[in-house]
Amino acid sequence: MNETTKPEKVSIVLHSGDMDKLYSALIIANGALAMGMEASIFFTFWGLQRLRKDASWAMPAAGLDNGPLSKMHMLGLGKKMIEWRMKKANVRSLEQMMTDFVELGGKVMACDMTMEIMGIKQEDLREDLIGEYCGVGTFIQDARESTVSLFI
Amino acid sequence: MNETTKPEKVSIVLHSGDMDKLYSALIIANGALAMGMEASIFFTFWGLQRLRKDASWAMPAAGLDNGPLSKMHMLGLGKKMIEWRMKKANVRSLEQMMTDFVELGGKVMACDMTMEIMGIKQEDLREDLIGEYCGVGTFIQDARESTVSLFI
Amino acid sequence: MNETTKPEKVSIVLHSGDMDKLYSALIIANGALAMGMEASIFFTFWGLQRLRKDASWAMPAAGLDNGPLSKMHMLGLGKKMIEWRMKKANVRSLEQMMTDFVELGGKVMACDMTMEIMGIKQEDLREDLIGEYCGVGTFIQDARESTVSLFI
Repeated sequence: MNETTKPEKVSIVLHSGDMDKLYSALIIANGALAMGMEASIFFTFWGLQRLRKDASWAMPAAGLDNGPLSKMHMLGLGKKMIEWRMKKANVRSLEQMMTDFVELGGKVMACDMTMEIMGIKQEDLREDLIGEYCGVGTFIQDARESTVSLFI
Repeated sequence: MNETTKPEKVSIVLHSGDMDKLYSALIIANGALAMGMEASIFFTFWGLQRLRKDASWAMPAAGLDNGPLSKMHMLGLGKKMIEWRMKKANVRSLEQMMTDFVELGGKVMACDMTMEIMGIKQEDLREDLIGEYCGVGTFIQDARESTVSLFI
Repeated sequence: MNETTKPEKVSIVLHSGDMDKLYSALIIANGALAMGMEASIFFTFWGLQRLRKDASWAMPAAGLDNGPLSKMHMLGLGKKMIEWRMKKANVRSLEQMMTDFVELGGKVMACDMTMEIMGIKQEDLREDLIGEYCGVGTFIQDARESTVSLFI
Protein backbone atom coordinates (compact mmCIF):
# COMPACT_ATOMS: atom_id res chain seq x y z
CA MET A 1 0.00 0.00 0.00
CA ASN A 2 1.46 3.35 -0.92
CA GLU A 3 0.42 6.83 0.04
CA THR A 4 -1.36 7.59 -3.23
CA THR A 5 -3.85 4.77 -2.80
CA LYS A 6 -4.32 5.25 0.92
CA PRO A 7 -7.69 6.89 1.46
CA GLU A 8 -7.61 10.02 3.57
CA LYS A 9 -10.02 8.97 6.23
CA VAL A 10 -10.97 9.76 9.83
CA SER A 11 -12.04 6.73 11.80
CA ILE A 12 -13.68 7.14 15.22
CA VAL A 13 -14.68 4.65 17.95
CA LEU A 14 -17.48 6.21 19.95
CA HIS A 15 -17.37 4.34 23.26
CA SER A 16 -18.83 7.13 25.37
CA GLY A 17 -22.52 7.92 25.61
CA ASP A 18 -21.95 11.48 26.82
CA MET A 19 -23.72 14.04 24.68
CA ASP A 20 -20.71 16.35 24.61
CA LYS A 21 -18.52 13.52 23.32
CA LEU A 22 -21.04 12.68 20.59
CA TYR A 23 -20.95 16.36 19.68
CA SER A 24 -17.18 16.32 19.42
CA ALA A 25 -17.20 13.14 17.35
CA LEU A 26 -19.71 14.56 14.86
CA ILE A 27 -18.02 17.96 14.64
CA ILE A 28 -14.70 16.28 13.80
CA ALA A 29 -16.26 13.72 11.44
CA ASN A 30 -18.38 16.25 9.57
CA GLY A 31 -15.41 18.61 9.40
CA ALA A 32 -13.39 15.83 7.77
CA LEU A 33 -16.17 15.10 5.26
CA ALA A 34 -16.42 18.80 4.43
CA MET A 35 -12.68 18.77 3.69
CA GLY A 36 -13.11 15.93 1.21
CA MET A 37 -11.98 13.15 3.49
CA GLU A 38 -13.90 9.97 4.31
CA ALA A 39 -15.20 9.40 7.83
CA SER A 40 -16.63 6.54 9.83
CA ILE A 41 -17.90 6.18 13.38
CA PHE A 42 -18.06 2.82 15.16
CA PHE A 43 -20.77 3.12 17.83
CA THR A 44 -20.01 0.77 20.70
CA PHE A 45 -20.75 0.36 24.44
CA TRP A 46 -22.48 3.52 25.74
CA GLY A 47 -22.06 5.19 22.37
CA LEU A 48 -24.38 2.65 20.78
CA GLN A 49 -27.15 3.74 23.17
CA ARG A 50 -27.23 7.03 21.26
CA LEU A 51 -28.43 5.17 18.17
CA ARG A 52 -31.51 3.83 19.94
CA LYS A 53 -34.78 5.05 18.54
CA ASP A 54 -35.81 6.12 22.04
CA ALA A 55 -32.60 8.07 22.71
CA SER A 56 -33.25 11.74 22.83
CA TRP A 57 -30.95 14.02 20.89
CA ALA A 58 -33.02 17.13 21.38
CA MET A 59 -30.04 19.23 22.33
CA PRO A 60 -29.57 21.03 24.49
CA ALA A 61 -32.76 20.72 26.52
CA ALA A 62 -33.10 16.94 26.78
CA GLY A 63 -29.54 16.01 25.98
CA LEU A 64 -28.04 18.15 28.67
CA ASP A 65 -30.10 16.29 31.23
CA ASN A 66 -28.02 13.18 30.62
CA GLY A 67 -24.69 14.28 31.92
CA PRO A 68 -23.10 17.46 30.63
CA LEU A 69 -25.76 19.53 32.37
CA SER A 70 -23.96 19.58 35.69
CA LYS A 71 -20.75 20.63 34.01
CA MET A 72 -22.53 23.40 32.14
CA HIS A 73 -24.03 24.61 35.40
CA MET A 74 -20.59 24.57 36.96
CA LEU A 75 -19.69 27.20 34.41
CA GLY A 76 -22.63 29.26 35.58
CA LEU A 77 -24.57 28.87 32.36
CA GLY A 78 -28.22 27.86 32.31
CA LYS A 79 -29.87 25.63 29.71
CA LYS A 80 -31.71 28.46 28.04
CA MET A 81 -28.48 30.43 27.77
CA ILE A 82 -26.62 27.53 26.15
CA GLU A 83 -29.53 26.94 23.77
CA TRP A 84 -29.54 30.59 22.77
CA ARG A 85 -25.77 30.73 22.31
CA MET A 86 -25.72 27.58 20.18
CA LYS A 87 -28.44 28.96 17.95
CA LYS A 88 -26.55 32.24 17.67
CA ALA A 89 -23.33 30.39 16.82
CA ASN A 90 -25.18 28.40 14.14
CA VAL A 91 -24.31 25.14 15.82
CA ARG A 92 -26.53 22.44 14.40
CA SER A 93 -28.45 20.02 16.61
CA LEU A 94 -27.20 16.46 17.09
CA GLU A 95 -30.08 15.15 14.98
CA GLN A 96 -29.08 17.50 12.16
CA MET A 97 -25.41 16.61 12.52
CA MET A 98 -26.16 12.87 12.37
CA THR A 99 -28.24 13.40 9.24
CA ASP A 100 -25.52 15.58 7.71
CA PHE A 101 -22.95 12.92 8.50
CA VAL A 102 -24.85 10.21 6.64
CA GLU A 103 -25.82 12.47 3.73
CA LEU A 104 -22.22 13.61 3.27
CA GLY A 105 -21.18 9.97 2.93
CA GLY A 106 -20.11 9.20 6.50
CA LYS A 107 -20.40 5.58 7.60
CA VAL A 108 -22.28 4.64 10.78
CA MET A 109 -21.21 1.27 12.17
CA ALA A 110 -23.16 -0.38 15.01
CA CYS A 111 -21.22 -2.78 17.25
CA ASP A 112 -22.95 -6.16 17.08
CA MET A 113 -21.31 -7.47 20.28
CA THR A 114 -22.75 -4.56 22.27
CA MET A 115 -26.15 -5.32 20.74
CA GLU A 116 -25.92 -8.94 21.83
CA ILE A 117 -24.74 -8.17 25.39
CA MET A 118 -27.26 -5.42 25.98
CA GLY A 119 -30.09 -7.23 24.23
CA ILE A 120 -30.58 -4.55 21.58
CA LYS A 121 -32.26 -5.55 18.31
CA GLN A 122 -31.82 -3.89 14.93
CA GLU A 123 -35.39 -2.59 15.09
CA ASP A 124 -34.55 -0.81 18.37
CA LEU A 125 -31.94 1.23 16.53
CA ARG A 126 -32.03 4.07 14.01
CA GLU A 127 -31.78 1.73 11.03
CA ASP A 128 -32.18 4.72 8.71
CA LEU A 129 -28.76 5.96 9.81
CA ILE A 130 -26.80 2.73 10.23
CA GLY A 131 -24.65 1.58 7.33
CA GLU A 132 -23.32 -1.64 8.83
CA TYR A 133 -23.80 -3.94 11.84
CA CYS A 134 -20.35 -5.32 12.56
CA GLY A 135 -17.65 -6.29 15.02
CA VAL A 136 -14.42 -4.75 16.17
CA GLY A 137 -12.54 -6.32 13.24
CA THR A 138 -14.36 -4.07 10.83
CA PHE A 139 -13.39 -1.02 12.86
CA ILE A 140 -9.75 -2.11 13.02
CA GLN A 141 -9.65 -2.67 9.26
CA ASP A 142 -11.15 0.78 8.87
CA ALA A 143 -8.69 2.38 11.28
CA ARG A 144 -5.61 0.87 9.67
CA GLU A 145 -6.68 2.43 6.37
CA SER A 146 -7.23 5.80 8.04
CA THR A 147 -5.03 8.84 8.39
CA VAL A 148 -6.55 9.75 11.73
CA SER A 149 -8.06 7.35 14.30
CA LEU A 150 -9.66 8.55 17.51
CA PHE A 151 -11.16 6.82 20.55
CA ILE A 152 -13.90 9.00 22.00
CA MET B 1 11.10 4.35 6.68
CA ASN B 2 8.81 3.11 3.95
CA GLU B 3 5.47 1.37 4.12
CA THR B 4 6.84 -2.12 3.63
CA THR B 5 9.01 -1.99 6.73
CA LYS B 6 6.49 -0.12 8.86
CA PRO B 7 5.01 -2.61 11.30
CA GLU B 8 1.25 -2.74 11.31
CA LYS B 9 0.65 -2.05 14.96
CA VAL B 10 -2.04 -0.75 17.30
CA SER B 11 -0.69 1.28 20.18
CA ILE B 12 -2.94 2.19 23.10
CA VAL B 13 -2.47 4.47 26.14
CA LEU B 14 -4.78 3.25 28.86
CA HIS B 15 -5.19 6.28 31.14
CA SER B 16 -8.64 5.34 32.45
CA GLY B 17 -9.26 2.84 35.22
CA ASP B 18 -12.88 2.23 34.22
CA MET B 19 -13.64 -1.43 33.64
CA ASP B 20 -15.60 -0.71 30.47
CA LYS B 21 -12.65 1.20 29.02
CA LEU B 22 -10.26 -1.65 29.86
CA TYR B 23 -12.73 -3.94 28.10
CA SER B 24 -12.71 -1.76 25.00
CA ALA B 25 -8.91 -1.53 25.01
CA LEU B 26 -8.51 -5.31 25.19
CA ILE B 27 -11.21 -6.03 22.62
CA ILE B 28 -9.50 -3.71 20.14
CA ALA B 29 -5.98 -4.92 20.98
CA ASN B 30 -6.87 -8.61 20.83
CA GLY B 31 -8.79 -8.00 17.63
CA ALA B 32 -5.68 -6.45 16.11
CA LEU B 33 -3.50 -9.38 17.23
CA ALA B 34 -6.02 -11.82 15.76
CA MET B 35 -5.72 -9.95 12.46
CA GLY B 36 -1.96 -10.43 12.44
CA MET B 37 -1.06 -6.97 13.68
CA GLU B 38 1.12 -6.12 16.66
CA ALA B 39 -0.40 -4.44 19.70
CA SER B 40 0.82 -2.71 22.83
CA ILE B 41 -0.92 -1.10 25.79
CA PHE B 42 0.78 1.53 27.96
CA PHE B 43 -0.91 1.37 31.39
CA THR B 44 -0.72 4.77 33.07
CA PHE B 45 -2.52 6.83 35.74
CA TRP B 46 -5.76 5.05 36.73
CA GLY B 47 -5.18 2.41 34.08
CA LEU B 48 -2.09 1.21 35.92
CA GLN B 49 -4.24 0.47 38.98
CA ARG B 50 -5.80 -2.36 36.96
CA LEU B 51 -2.44 -4.12 36.90
CA ARG B 52 -2.27 -4.27 40.69
CA LYS B 53 -2.30 -7.76 42.12
CA ASP B 54 -5.17 -6.72 44.41
CA ALA B 55 -7.28 -5.27 41.59
CA SER B 56 -10.30 -7.38 40.91
CA TRP B 57 -11.10 -8.23 37.33
CA ALA B 58 -13.84 -10.67 38.17
CA MET B 59 -16.22 -9.27 35.63
CA PRO B 60 -18.98 -8.55 35.78
CA ALA B 61 -19.76 -9.08 39.44
CA ALA B 62 -16.85 -7.28 41.10
CA GLY B 63 -15.81 -5.14 38.17
CA LEU B 64 -19.20 -3.61 37.71
CA ASP B 65 -19.06 -2.38 41.28
CA ASN B 66 -16.29 0.04 40.34
CA GLY B 67 -18.07 2.38 38.03
CA PRO B 68 -19.94 1.01 35.06
CA LEU B 69 -22.52 -0.58 37.35
CA SER B 70 -24.57 2.56 37.69
CA LYS B 71 -24.60 3.03 33.94
CA MET B 72 -25.68 -0.56 33.44
CA HIS B 73 -28.48 -0.05 35.92
CA MET B 74 -29.52 3.06 34.06
CA LEU B 75 -30.17 0.78 31.13
CA GLY B 76 -32.38 -1.31 33.35
CA LEU B 77 -30.10 -4.31 33.35
CA GLY B 78 -29.10 -6.11 36.52
CA LYS B 79 -25.72 -7.69 37.21
CA LYS B 80 -26.99 -11.23 36.82
CA MET B 81 -28.53 -10.33 33.49
CA ILE B 82 -25.31 -8.80 32.18
CA GLU B 83 -23.33 -11.79 33.41
CA TRP B 84 -25.69 -14.16 31.67
CA ARG B 85 -25.70 -12.19 28.44
CA MET B 86 -21.91 -11.97 28.34
CA LYS B 87 -21.62 -15.70 28.84
CA LYS B 88 -24.19 -16.27 26.11
CA ALA B 89 -22.33 -13.92 23.76
CA ASN B 90 -19.09 -15.77 24.48
CA VAL B 91 -17.45 -12.61 25.77
CA ARG B 92 -14.35 -13.58 27.69
CA SER B 93 -13.60 -12.23 31.16
CA LEU B 94 -11.05 -9.46 31.63
CA GLU B 95 -8.62 -11.91 33.22
CA GLN B 96 -8.93 -14.19 30.20
CA MET B 97 -8.56 -11.28 27.79
CA MET B 98 -5.42 -10.03 29.54
CA THR B 99 -3.92 -13.51 29.37
CA ASP B 100 -4.92 -13.86 25.72
CA PHE B 101 -3.34 -10.48 24.99
CA VAL B 102 0.02 -11.52 26.41
CA GLU B 103 -0.07 -15.01 24.90
CA LEU B 104 -0.89 -13.64 21.46
CA GLY B 105 2.22 -11.45 21.67
CA GLY B 106 0.72 -8.20 22.94
CA LYS B 107 3.04 -5.96 24.94
CA VAL B 108 2.02 -4.68 28.39
CA MET B 109 3.92 -1.54 29.40
CA ALA B 110 3.68 -0.18 32.97
CA CYS B 111 4.24 3.57 33.39
CA ASP B 112 7.15 4.02 35.80
CA MET B 113 6.29 7.65 36.60
CA THR B 114 2.85 6.61 37.82
CA MET B 115 4.46 3.92 39.94
CA GLU B 116 6.77 6.48 41.53
CA ILE B 117 4.03 9.06 42.20
CA MET B 118 1.57 6.55 43.58
CA GLY B 119 4.17 4.59 45.48
CA ILE B 120 3.56 1.34 43.60
CA LYS B 121 6.34 -1.25 43.54
CA GLN B 122 6.95 -3.90 40.89
CA GLU B 123 5.93 -6.61 43.35
CA ASP B 124 2.54 -4.88 43.80
CA LEU B 125 1.85 -5.41 40.11
CA ARG B 126 1.02 -8.39 37.93
CA GLU B 127 4.65 -8.99 36.95
CA ASP B 128 3.58 -12.12 35.07
CA LEU B 129 1.79 -9.91 32.54
CA ILE B 130 4.08 -6.89 32.31
CA GLY B 131 6.60 -6.83 29.49
CA GLU B 132 8.29 -3.53 30.30
CA TYR B 133 8.43 -0.85 32.99
CA CYS B 134 9.00 2.39 31.12
CA GLY B 135 8.25 6.05 30.61
CA VAL B 136 6.20 8.03 28.14
CA GLY B 137 9.09 8.11 25.66
CA THR B 138 8.74 4.39 25.08
CA PHE B 139 5.04 4.81 24.37
CA ILE B 140 5.70 7.69 21.95
CA GLN B 141 8.32 5.66 20.09
CA ASP B 142 5.81 2.83 19.93
CA ALA B 143 3.02 5.09 18.73
CA ARG B 144 5.04 6.70 15.96
CA GLU B 145 5.74 3.22 14.56
CA SER B 146 2.05 2.32 14.75
CA THR B 147 -0.70 2.44 12.19
CA VAL B 148 -3.33 3.17 14.81
CA SER B 149 -2.81 4.99 18.14
CA LEU B 150 -5.60 5.43 20.67
CA PHE B 151 -5.88 7.23 24.01
CA ILE B 152 -8.39 5.40 26.18
CA MET C 1 3.12 13.09 0.10
CA ASN C 2 5.90 10.68 0.97
CA GLU C 3 7.36 9.66 4.30
CA THR C 4 10.41 11.92 4.06
CA THR C 5 8.36 15.11 3.83
CA LYS C 6 5.74 14.04 6.35
CA PRO C 7 6.43 15.88 9.59
CA GLU C 8 6.71 13.67 12.61
CA LYS C 9 4.06 15.26 14.77
CA VAL C 10 1.77 14.45 17.68
CA SER C 11 -1.61 16.10 17.45
CA ILE C 12 -3.97 16.11 20.43
CA VAL C 13 -7.60 17.20 20.89
CA LEU C 14 -8.10 18.07 24.53
CA HIS C 15 -11.86 17.76 25.04
CA SER C 16 -11.72 16.93 28.74
CA GLY C 17 -11.27 19.48 31.50
CA ASP C 18 -10.05 16.90 34.03
CA MET C 19 -6.70 17.81 35.55
CA ASP C 20 -5.36 14.30 35.19
CA LYS C 21 -6.20 14.29 31.47
CA LEU C 22 -4.46 17.66 30.99
CA TYR C 23 -1.48 16.13 32.76
CA SER C 24 -1.46 13.16 30.41
CA ALA C 25 -1.80 15.40 27.36
CA LEU C 26 1.15 17.57 28.39
CA ILE C 27 3.35 14.65 29.42
CA ILE C 28 2.83 13.04 26.01
CA ALA C 29 3.17 16.31 24.08
CA ASN C 30 6.30 17.44 25.92
CA GLY C 31 7.76 13.97 25.56
CA ALA C 32 7.24 14.19 21.80
CA LEU C 33 8.87 17.64 21.66
CA ALA C 34 11.83 16.35 23.68
CA MET C 35 12.21 13.56 21.09
CA GLY C 36 12.45 16.11 18.29
CA MET C 37 8.87 15.77 17.07
CA GLU C 38 6.36 18.56 16.63
CA ALA C 39 3.30 18.72 18.87
CA SER C 40 0.02 20.59 18.97
CA ILE C 41 -2.94 20.60 21.33
CA PHE C 42 -6.41 21.74 20.25
CA PHE C 43 -8.20 22.92 23.41
CA THR C 44 -11.95 22.47 23.00
CA PHE C 45 -15.10 22.04 25.14
CA TRP C 46 -14.08 21.50 28.79
CA GLY C 47 -10.43 21.48 27.84
CA LEU C 48 -10.66 25.11 26.77
CA GLN C 49 -11.73 26.04 30.30
CA ARG C 50 -8.20 25.17 31.41
CA LEU C 51 -6.88 28.06 29.32
CA ARG C 52 -8.98 30.62 31.20
CA LYS C 53 -6.99 33.17 33.14
CA ASP C 54 -9.04 32.33 36.23
CA ALA C 55 -8.49 28.57 35.95
CA SER C 56 -6.24 27.31 38.67
CA TRP C 57 -3.41 24.99 37.71
CA ALA C 58 -1.76 25.04 41.07
CA MET C 59 -1.31 21.30 41.16
CA PRO C 60 -1.85 19.34 43.11
CA ALA C 61 -3.49 21.37 45.87
CA ALA C 62 -6.03 23.36 43.88
CA GLY C 63 -6.15 21.17 40.82
CA LEU C 64 -7.02 18.07 42.72
CA ASP C 65 -10.09 19.80 44.08
CA ASN C 66 -11.64 19.76 40.61
CA GLY C 67 -12.15 16.09 40.09
CA PRO C 68 -9.23 13.72 40.44
CA LEU C 69 -9.17 14.34 44.17
CA SER C 70 -11.81 11.77 44.93
CA LYS C 71 -10.03 9.18 42.84
CA MET C 72 -6.76 9.90 44.60
CA HIS C 73 -8.51 9.51 47.93
CA MET C 74 -9.94 6.21 46.74
CA LEU C 75 -6.37 5.05 46.51
CA GLY C 76 -5.87 6.09 50.10
CA LEU C 77 -3.50 8.92 49.29
CA GLY C 78 -3.94 12.38 50.74
CA LYS C 79 -3.20 15.65 48.95
CA LYS C 80 -0.03 16.34 50.92
CA MET C 81 1.25 12.87 50.14
CA ILE C 82 0.64 13.27 46.40
CA GLU C 83 2.25 16.70 46.47
CA TRP C 84 5.29 15.31 48.22
CA ARG C 85 5.57 12.33 45.90
CA MET C 86 5.29 14.48 42.78
CA LYS C 87 8.01 16.78 44.05
CA LYS C 88 10.17 13.78 44.86
CA ALA C 89 9.55 12.29 41.38
CA ASN C 90 10.49 15.64 39.82
CA VAL C 91 7.13 15.93 38.15
CA ARG C 92 6.66 19.51 37.02
CA SER C 93 3.52 21.49 37.80
CA LEU C 94 0.90 22.02 35.11
CA GLU C 95 1.86 25.69 34.85
CA GLN C 96 5.47 24.69 34.27
CA MET C 97 4.50 22.02 31.78
CA MET C 98 2.33 24.46 29.79
CA THR C 99 5.20 26.94 29.68
CA ASP C 100 7.64 24.21 28.67
CA PHE C 101 5.27 23.11 25.93
CA VAL C 102 5.14 26.58 24.38
CA GLU C 103 8.85 27.25 24.82
CA LEU C 104 9.76 23.94 23.21
CA GLY C 105 7.74 24.95 20.15
CA GLY C 106 4.41 23.26 20.92
CA LYS C 107 1.34 24.84 19.39
CA VAL C 108 -1.66 25.77 21.55
CA MET C 109 -4.89 26.05 19.55
CA ALA C 110 -8.05 27.48 21.14
CA CYS C 111 -11.37 26.30 19.69
CA ASP C 112 -13.26 29.38 18.52
CA MET C 113 -16.63 27.61 18.41
CA THR C 114 -16.35 26.73 22.09
CA MET C 115 -15.48 30.37 22.82
CA GLU C 116 -18.58 31.54 20.98
CA ILE C 117 -20.94 29.04 22.64
CA MET C 118 -19.60 29.58 26.13
CA GLY C 119 -19.23 33.33 25.73
CA ILE C 120 -15.47 33.33 26.30
CA LYS C 121 -13.46 36.26 24.94
CA GLN C 122 -9.78 36.23 23.95
CA GLU C 123 -8.97 38.46 26.93
CA ASP C 124 -10.49 35.83 29.26
CA LEU C 125 -7.88 33.35 28.05
CA ARG C 126 -4.16 32.90 28.56
CA GLU C 127 -3.26 34.81 25.39
CA ASP C 128 0.42 34.48 26.28
CA LEU C 129 0.18 30.74 25.64
CA ILE C 130 -2.24 30.54 22.71
CA GLY C 131 -0.76 30.31 19.24
CA GLU C 132 -3.99 30.28 17.23
CA TYR C 133 -7.74 30.75 17.64
CA CYS C 134 -9.30 28.40 15.15
CA GLY C 135 -11.95 25.85 14.26
CA VAL C 136 -12.03 22.10 13.93
CA GLY C 137 -10.78 22.30 10.33
CA THR C 138 -7.40 23.51 11.55
CA PHE C 139 -7.17 20.58 13.95
CA ILE C 140 -8.13 18.09 11.23
CA GLN C 141 -5.52 19.52 8.86
CA ASP C 142 -3.00 19.22 11.68
CA ALA C 143 -4.03 15.66 12.51
CA ARG C 144 -3.82 14.42 8.93
CA GLU C 145 -0.22 15.64 8.82
CA SER C 146 0.58 13.91 12.11
CA THR C 147 2.08 10.54 12.89
CA VAL C 148 0.08 10.24 16.09
CA SER C 149 -3.36 11.75 16.82
CA LEU C 150 -5.07 11.41 20.17
CA PHE C 151 -8.46 12.45 21.55
CA ILE C 152 -8.14 13.14 25.25
